[in-house]
Amino acid sequence: MRQSQRGQVDPFIVMDVMEAAARAEAQGRRIVHMEVGQPSTPAPRAALDALGQALSQPLGYTIPLGMPELRAAIAGLYRRWYGIDLDPARVVVTPGSSGAFVLAFSALFDAGDRVAVGEPGYPSYRQILRAMSVQPVGMQTRAENRYQPVPGDIPDDVQGVMIASPGNPSGTMLDRDALAALVARTQDIGAALISDEIYHGLDYGARPVSALELTDDVVVINSFSKYFSMTGWRVGWMVVPPDMVRTIGRLVANMFICAPHASQVAALAALSPEADAEAQENLAVYAHNRQLMLDRLPAMGFDRIAPPDGAFYIYADVSALTDDSRALAAEILDRAGVAVTPGLDFDPIRGAGTLRLSYAQSTAEITEGLDRLADFMARR
Amino acid sequence: MRQSQRGQVDPFIVMDVMEAAARAEAQGRRIVHMEVGQPSTPAPRAALDALGQALSQPLGYTIPLGMPELRAAIAGLYRRWYGIDLDPARVVVTPGSSGAFVLAFSALFDAGDRVAVGEPGYPSYRQILRAMSVQPVGMQTRAENRYQPVPGDIPDDVQGVMIASPGNPSGTMLDRDALAALVARTQDIGAALISDEIYHGLDYGARPVSALELTDDVVVINSFSKYFSMTGWRVGWMVVPPDMVRTIGRLVANMFICAPHASQVAALAALSPEADAEAQENLAVYAHNRQLMLDRLPAMGFDRIAPPDGAFYIYADVSALTDDSRALAAEILDRAGVAVTPGLDFDPIRGAGTLRLSYAQSTAEITEGLDRLADFMARR
Repeated sequence: MRQSQRGQVDPFIVMDVMEAAARAEAQGRRIVHMEVGQPSTPAPRAALDALGQALSQPLGYTIPLGMPELRAAIAGLYRRWYGIDLDPARVVVTPGSSGAFVLAFSALFDAGDRVAVGEPGYPSYRQILRAMSVQPVGMQTRAENRYQPVPGDIPDDVQGVMIASPGNPSGTMLDRDALAALVARTQDIGAALISDEIYHGLDYGARPVSALELTDDVVVINSFSKYFSMTGWRVGWMVVPPDMVRTIGRLVANMFICAPHASQVAALAALSPEADAEAQENLAVYAHNRQLMLDRLPAMGFDRIAPPDGAFYIYADVSALTDDSRALAAEILDRAGVAVTPGLDFDPIRGAGTLRLSYAQSTAEITEGLDRLADFMARR
Repeated sequence: MRQSQRGQVDPFIVMDVMEAAARAEAQGRRIVHMEVGQPSTPAPRAALDALGQALSQPLGYTIPLGMPELRAAIAGLYRRWYGIDLDPARVVVTPGSSGAFVLAFSALFDAGDRVAVGEPGYPSYRQILRAMSVQPVGMQTRAENRYQPVPGDIPDDVQGVMIASPGNPSGTMLDRDALAALVARTQDIGAALISDEIYHGLDYGARPVSALELTDDVVVINSFSKYFSMTGWRVGWMVVPPDMVRTIGRLVANMFICAPHASQVAALAALSPEADAEAQENLAVYAHNRQLMLDRLPAMGFDRIAPPDGAFYIYADVSALTDDSRALAAEILDRAGVAVTPGLDFDPIRGAGTLRLSYAQSTAEITEGLDRLADFMARR
């Protein structure tokens, strides 16, 4: 059958690692997973309990924009986290942050438009844009700028700018001034600003700044996947300018009908104080794991590391070790039994010399992974 | 903030009816809901039990194409329903049939392509296509063709053809010969064929024919929403030609990551014999409701009705009563307290003279709705 050009998006390079890891595990080998982009913890107990109790209800469609009480509770989170008074009418519940990107790109860009994305960055920004006939324009961010774009990186002729703080894979954050400069530049050129804030809540020093603290003229995207440990539930949200609510509501109704009802019920309870306490316990584990990584990785040779302000990743420049991160990841998997992500997924140019290591797993797992990596590097 | 042209999709006209109904209910008035497109029954008991038991598991991301055991069980359904031996590798689990449309349109069509859609038809085909910069080309189907397209309705210059049997809003089906003729025509012009089979299982005479019984060169889309009574769970599937699996897998991974894990667990159990028995009980209710509709509607003046072979809708030509179905629906809501859907959502041209009435609710509800409609028509 005929296929479109735009449908031919790039594969995730990490899939090769994951498939090789699965084969090794099927043969009885134990693999330490530092390639994963998700917590190993379940959804908060309170979320699961709430869903368990709701299973006797019909759980049909919700209204397209999401359960009103969930939208109000998300608005409440903006007060708690940022001191922002947010109108719940501007909150749209989405099928994960992925669904939010599809909605935002549909609402903001026409075919042929150009959108600036940071490199390294989450690969699906580029691929979703392509699948929607929008052209991603890579901004090669610099290590001295913490792998975050600066105003001069944003071309004049783009219709949109995608930012992410904390970033994936870098874990680096934009402080208030850096974010304000990007907001100003974006407004100067009349482009739409989309701020991916999915790793908010996962920070290890200064708290991340939301673009909503600086402007209402932005689409902010977030999710219950990371801080709330609910990846597989596919529930996220977006905050849009008031004059975009109607457009997004129509798009949700047609493209998705609504986010999964059961997941919305669970998400509402994930915003309870009990669930927050559980999320904070998970955060303490990540903080401990992060410190282990920072204490041990440099000594074994992974010494060029982006400052991991947030999220649960270390982005390591290994260009002194290899010019083929894919081969190095395969070698690490084969010889050390540790799965890591080649940087090529995040940066098609310089990613040949970088790796992403996740510390989202348990401390025991991370410790074993570090032991194995140290042994591998010592023998290399 | 800037907005795209393609994001300006049409509203659902039925939303006005639903909002007016909600206002009336908030004032204490009882409304009978014949506008709804979903069962009032919950997911099958077995599905809810399976999820209840799975809540102790992490329920993180599944692989993008879906849980292997669910894909295998869906392939098994094709054996049971149609006697087809289907490779589970061709089955892709999606976030509802809505997600499947987004994936299919991305994989098949580039910006500017043209896709033929039947009118009357499910409005979101047109809107999703527009949001993805693809041009829907309406085929005004004829009552004497059961509101289904015939080969002559398909223009030469389209890149795709969307069919649906049983159709929404018509409930009419394509028999094997009619479907074969559309397959042949589509192949003659080199267009991609997409067959929406979401109402399969809900039939009241001959069983519906799957396009997969006639060709492998088709994208078939289905869902757990209707027969399995799981609308809010947002889990559906598509069956694609073997050479399209890789493309779709990459698109799912980027655009959705995966369908909701909890919903996939529930869906797997919905394919059990116990759950099927429950779905058959629901079907018996629809069959009874349908007969009540057919027995009573013509006598009260709704006598031009498409043959409702399947689904749970009656599509009535009311052009002898009105040239403004929107106003008639508002009048019926106001005077009879029955919510119905104006045909304009399904057919922007002739829908001014049609209404869709759903019989998916309980028999008591349908009976009351018919009583109210009879009274309304007698006094009109």
